[in-house]
Amino acid sequence: LHFLHIVDQGLEFPSFDGKDRVLHINERNYKKALKRFDMLCLLYHEPQPAHKGRQKQLQMTELVLELTAQVLEDKDIGFGMVDSQKDAKVAKKLGLEEEGSLYIFKDDRVIEFDGEFSADTLVEFLLDVLEDPVELISNPMELRAFERMEEDIRLIGYFKGEDSYYKAFQEASERFQPYIKFFATFDKATAKHLSLKMNEVNFYEPFMEEPAILPGRQLSEMEIVEFVHQHKRATLRKLRAEDMFETWEDDLDGIHIVAFAEEEDPDGYEFLEILKDVARDNTNNPELSIVWIDPDDFPLLTTYWEKTFKVNLFKPQIGVVNLCSTCCVWLDMSNDEDLPTAEELEDWIEDVLSGKVNTEDDDDVKDYYDYDEVDREDRHHGDNHEDHGDYDDHDDSG
Amino acid sequence: LHFLHIVDQGLEFPSFDGKDRVLHINERNYKKALKRFDMLCLLYHEPQPAHKGRQKQLQMTELVLELTAQVLEDKDIGFGMVDSQKDAKVAKKLGLEEEGSLYIFKDDRVIEFDGEFSADTLVEFLLDVLEDPVELISNPMELRAFERMEEDIRLIGYFKGEDSYYKAFQEASERFQPYIKFFATFDKATAKHLSLKMNEVNFYEPFMEEPAILPGRQLSEMEIVEFVHQHKRATLRKLRAEDMFETWEDDLDGIHIVAFAEEEDPDGYEFLEILKDVARDNTNNPELSIVWIDPDDFPLLTTYWEKTFKVNLFKPQIGVVNLCSTCCVWLDMSNDEDLPTAEELEDWIEDVLSGKVNTEDDDDVKDYYDYDEVDREDRHHGDNHEDHGDYDDHDDSG
Repeated sequence: LHFLHIVDQGLEFPSFDGKDRVLHINERNYKKALKRFDMLCLLYHEPQPAHKGRQKQLQMTELVLELTAQVLEDKDIGFGMVDSQKDAKVAKKLGLEEEGSLYIFKDDRVIEFDGEFSADTLVEFLLDVLEDPVELISNPMELRAFERMEEDIRLIGYFKGEDSYYKAFQEASERFQPYIKFFATFDKATAKHLSLKMNEVNFYEPFMEEPAILPGRQLSEMEIVEFVHQHKRATLRKLRAEDMFETWEDDLDGIHIVAFAEEEDPDGYEFLEILKDVARDNTNNPELSIVWIDPDDFPLLTTYWEKTFKVNLFKPQIGVVNLCSTCCVWLDMSNDEDLPTAEELEDWIEDVLSGKVNTEDDDDVKDYYDYDEVDREDRHHGDNHEDHGDYDDHDDSG
Repeated sequence: LHFLHIVDQGLEFPSFDGKDRVLHINERNYKKALKRFDMLCLLYHEPQPAHKGRQKQLQMTELVLELTAQVLEDKDIGFGMVDSQKDAKVAKKLGLEEEGSLYIFKDDRVIEFDGEFSADTLVEFLLDVLEDPVELISNPMELRAFERMEEDIRLIGYFKGEDSYYKAFQEASERFQPYIKFFATFDKATAKHLSLKMNEVNFYEPFMEEPAILPGRQLSEMEIVEFVHQHKRATLRKLRAEDMFETWEDDLDGIHIVAFAEEEDPDGYEFLEILKDVARDNTNNPELSIVWIDPDDFPLLTTYWEKTFKVNLFKPQIGVVNLCSTCCVWLDMSNDEDLPTAEELEDWIEDVLSGKVNTEDDDDVKDYYDYDEVDREDRHHGDNHEDHGDYDDHDDSG
């Protein structure tokens, strides 16, 4: 007890020290700032709002940026704010477009950050940007690490060494860093294990077992970039803090099919495996993209989602969310002891895509209001108890 | 762009709404508060400090508690603060001991939270406490989920059903919730797969392949509790936000062997696999407990650790940290292209345990100062490049 201050040495979380590190960027200083730092991060923000609550929000955003700057003080990264009204000219010159986004200038490229604006997420993101955009895979253990990363879009190429084809691959990788992961190997055995021919590049969609092979060998930077742009919306994609708003904005005609599942939970894991099966069976359907959210990754949003979507997140769920109305329909999984099979899930998804299940259906809406009322009950009983018959008897075939 | 406010619907992070929800707990109101809520969370804090910086820190802590209370508003959880000086009497009655800890009163037990004091971590922790303390495993997919959780201490028991032996197991689980995970199965096939006999309980140490079998069948609550207390310091334990300070305080005579490795990184993954091998070989050595830190889990601490420990965290590291002086020695892995083998790592650990490698060695201290100066260089080159000879030539056999 009395050792507290000694033993906590080594685990001291930083808090803002009050020193201003974030620059106000304007026409006079932007060029100098770009030159001075290895990397410059500019927050493009709305003009000082009249509304008090939004004023405070903007202040909090600035504080997050200040703390990030403080934590990364030794990394030669500059931070600045650009007001979309007062600094409209600079913003135009720099190509800033989306209010609330952070733009990172590194060498001759610009990376847009459109994720959770917290110091945690930002610091991790910026440290990733500092790393090499291509990771080399050179032994069986690293290969196993590569094969385990099923949640991410990954490209891997086999090259002789740092030759011109590798360079093209590397240039392409810089355009997607750190969102899409690029790997390379110069090792014959590794290439053989992956069935990669010399100068060939494979594209792994998240959760798919087999990669797509990029057409042609000796690929140019633009050929790789084009291919990635065409394939980057995955059939099953996990919501990640670092690009959550971008993912959310990339909707399917105003809706998202959203699945909630905690991977750490046996029930959630099981549901996720079923979901992966469905995604694998339907990977060629360009209309289908399911957003998987692991509530464990977003503790602060969990109860908000429960309220907004009127759904119980103590167990797995899948539903359709209408982004304009935040109206939604959830697949009813309360009647069964078991989760749906892959076939049942596919039938439901077909109904969603054909419009048979949609968020304008009144009966469905009623259904999940009913559902909401039993959430508390359900939570206390858990999923594996026999006694949840009390809310099983409402009919939802309507 | 102009759709921003529409499409962000569904992803709104909460910010504190200004409404006070955290109670000041004192002698007059504590009993009422305990009765009123399903769960009561009390922050036991130091008296109002004179120092400005610490005053602000206490304020920030209170804000975190307020935001947590706001997010969990519908969950029937009460929140309060107890001043260790002004409310000393209440604190004594309630058994609060460690300043800075949060105590959770649920039914007739008290759970101490001694982790990262952020709203994220707290909310996730409290949601975990709301769940059932025992999870049932009833099919092969859930079993696979169970088998994948190698990072956590897990117990699993096989019971006929919710009989008295299961009840004892459940009572024991409540004493460790949510830090140690308890599972049960009523399913013969699942039990068979785990080689569990009826009323038997297995204890899985993190990263070990084979479980320990609790001696005796038809175990009482106390027998289970005793066993867990005796075995809960694992040979390899991962630092987790929810109990990081507790783990850190549970040192080995003032030192920790600390390993940094990013599991998501091929290099880090490889190093971690070696580390697991070493831990498996030495699981019976009570003197050995390695703390594994994945820097990805603690972005705000990464640069702080780099400074405090004078070590480059863009690649895997293992070292000895002296908690009194935060002095440390790191295993030199810069001379080789390859990571150490399990044997080399074991030799080094033996040297640590025998005192041959220790933090009082001046030469070693000099070594990592040298090391620090090349960090930046190293970072830009990455690990897999051939051209890091520039700092390979200093000799550290000293």
